[in-house]
Amino acid sequence: MAGPAPAVADVRRAVRAGLAGLAGLEPGALVLVACSGGADSLALAAATASVAPRAGLRAGAVTVDHGLQEGSAARAGAVAGVLRRLGLDPVEVAAVRVGGRGGPEAAARDARYAALRSAAAAHGAAAVLLGHTRDDQAETVLLGLARGSGARSLAGMAAVGVLPGGPAGPGGPGGAQGPALLRPLLGLDRGTTRAACAALGLAPWDDPHNADPAYARARARHRALPALEAALGPGVAAALARTADLLRDDADALDAWASRAAAACTGPDGTLDAAGLAAEPAAVRRRVLRRAALAAGCPAGALTAGHLAALDGLLTRWRGQGPLDLPGGVGAARRCGRLSLARRAAGGGSGA
Amino acid sequence: MAGPAPAVADVRRAVRAGLAGLAGLEPGALVLVACSGGADSLALAAATASVAPRAGLRAGAVTVDHGLQEGSAARAGAVAGVLRRLGLDPVEVAAVRVGGRGGPEAAARDARYAALRSAAAAHGAAAVLLGHTRDDQAETVLLGLARGSGARSLAGMAAVGVLPGGPAGPGGPGGAQGPALLRPLLGLDRGTTRAACAALGLAPWDDPHNADPAYARARARHRALPALEAALGPGVAAALARTADLLRDDADALDAWASRAAAACTGPDGTLDAAGLAAEPAAVRRRVLRRAALAAGCPAGALTAGHLAALDGLLTRWRGQGPLDLPGGVGAARRCGRLSLARRAAGGGSGA
Repeated sequence: MAGPAPAVADVRRAVRAGLAGLAGLEPGALVLVACSGGADSLALAAATASVAPRAGLRAGAVTVDHGLQEGSAARAGAVAGVLRRLGLDPVEVAAVRVGGRGGPEAAARDARYAALRSAAAAHGAAAVLLGHTRDDQAETVLLGLARGSGARSLAGMAAVGVLPGGPAGPGGPGGAQGPALLRPLLGLDRGTTRAACAALGLAPWDDPHNADPAYARARARHRALPALEAALGPGVAAALARTADLLRDDADALDAWASRAAAACTGPDGTLDAAGLAAEPAAVRRRVLRRAALAAGCPAGALTAGHLAALDGLLTRWRGQGPLDLPGGVGAARRCGRLSLARRAAGGGSGA
Repeated sequence: MAGPAPAVADVRRAVRAGLAGLAGLEPGALVLVACSGGADSLALAAATASVAPRAGLRAGAVTVDHGLQEGSAARAGAVAGVLRRLGLDPVEVAAVRVGGRGGPEAAARDARYAALRSAAAAHGAAAVLLGHTRDDQAETVLLGLARGSGARSLAGMAAVGVLPGGPAGPGGPGGAQGPALLRPLLGLDRGTTRAACAALGLAPWDDPHNADPAYARARARHRALPALEAALGPGVAAALARTADLLRDDADALDAWASRAAAACTGPDGTLDAAGLAAEPAAVRRRVLRRAALAAGCPAGALTAGHLAALDGLLTRWRGQGPLDLPGGVGAARRCGRLSLARRAAGGGSGA
């Protein structure tokens, strides 16, 4: 008997390795595939339906109806039908309302993650599987580059994590942590998932948003990456994904260093020892200062490299500067060798 | 009296700030501008001729004749004439022979840096000034991205450094360190240097190599960056330059951490304490292992992420693996809790 097509085998192998690497999955635990009906998540769903039972796990699926397009409910129902025929159980259609906060892409993502969290909680799922591929990772790195905001934003998506954004539902087996998040296909390219669907006779649905140049990710996918490949040679997507892996490790190590430095420099009153922090390297100082500013109430989006450089000047170029005004009504000042960041009291004394 | 044109003032301000930030420049010290005759280095030369005397410094220039194009000697002579008319003194034409090692771009750069080192030594220059702009920095980051080799290769060029590549000449005031290297224009874009040249009536020479798609940098400049700007919005070059600054700080901090970890884990026989190194984060382990492999004789270009992952497996996924073969005839093995990397003895016992 012939084995599965090579692309099908590749996707199954990736899912098997991903599940095997996930610590704490008990026998009979449920894993939920998040499936839009696109090639990546459809190939993931098919592979998980095949692989999970042999690993002693149950495999279900959720498809999210964002309600943003004509006929989206019917399409979500059709995707659910395909998922049931693949043998996934339970299969849930989660209808969401997409708000407007942070732009259309961020709002849709937030709504989707909230729905996945509820579905995982409702069914007691131990993990949620997402179909992101190496191409998605490369696009994420490019979008981070366009922001110019450092290693963490270039570090892309981790293969293993925790479902982000808010507290877990009461039924989640992960407790306050929420279910695990697994992206087993980050090492495969989009061509492989398409080939797997074709080999299995599955017809993926191409979300028109993915080709709509109004969306930054669509422009990264259809314009920026092909242009980079043309200019710099093939393999750019793989190089970007490799960059993301390396920079994620860097960011993790430097975040850990920053935590140690912050613990060592922070006094009982929450102020920072200026000389102690000044002795740390610039990459560590910047991280400690950024966290202190966010903790004091600066909105993350408003805090610029210029603000952080001015804060750093209070440590490393000290010549008696006056206090600094930071976004969100936060003030920073150095007094008696200690740096304090705090929200200024509002005019009427009603400051938080 | 009207002041200088805005672009001229911008370039002068950048050079003034760069020279002021260079520690250890004594009154009357000579700074040498490396000038190809292109807009960036011509604007730099003009600004330095104006700014250096007021800072109590002497300003000279070197133009390198790479001998790669018909008429290059005559052109170098013409550039030298322009530099002398700008008031720079001494002005030297350095003719070099470009080898072939590492490809045409690397070979030309190596020859150029060697000529700058000799000229600095011959004239007792304290610093060499290069005209790289923010656009050059963005191109460097893109080329690093296409390699996918991590923070250091994305960190681009530093504003202050030491002239690379080989020992300093005997006359260099920096001693064994060689003269300082200064890139005062990294915060300006190419449009500013062109505008400064135009305002001063200087006609820059456009090196045809800069537009030749046979060169990776020319493709990054003329194809990749414009495509990225078109897809992701204006400001991509500035974002890439900002990324380089942040990642340079990250790489410096992690290199320092790796040095400490290596010192703590290396025994008198040069082997590494496997458990001690395994307790460090991945970003630090990778750097320590990479240095140990290079020190053992692995050629840098042949050492892949896969080799480093296999080495790391000897630390963090130890299950009695056998020795590893690394490029350059280097072997790695874990024995009695210690990791050793060494060049294998050659067949006839004549190993180095």
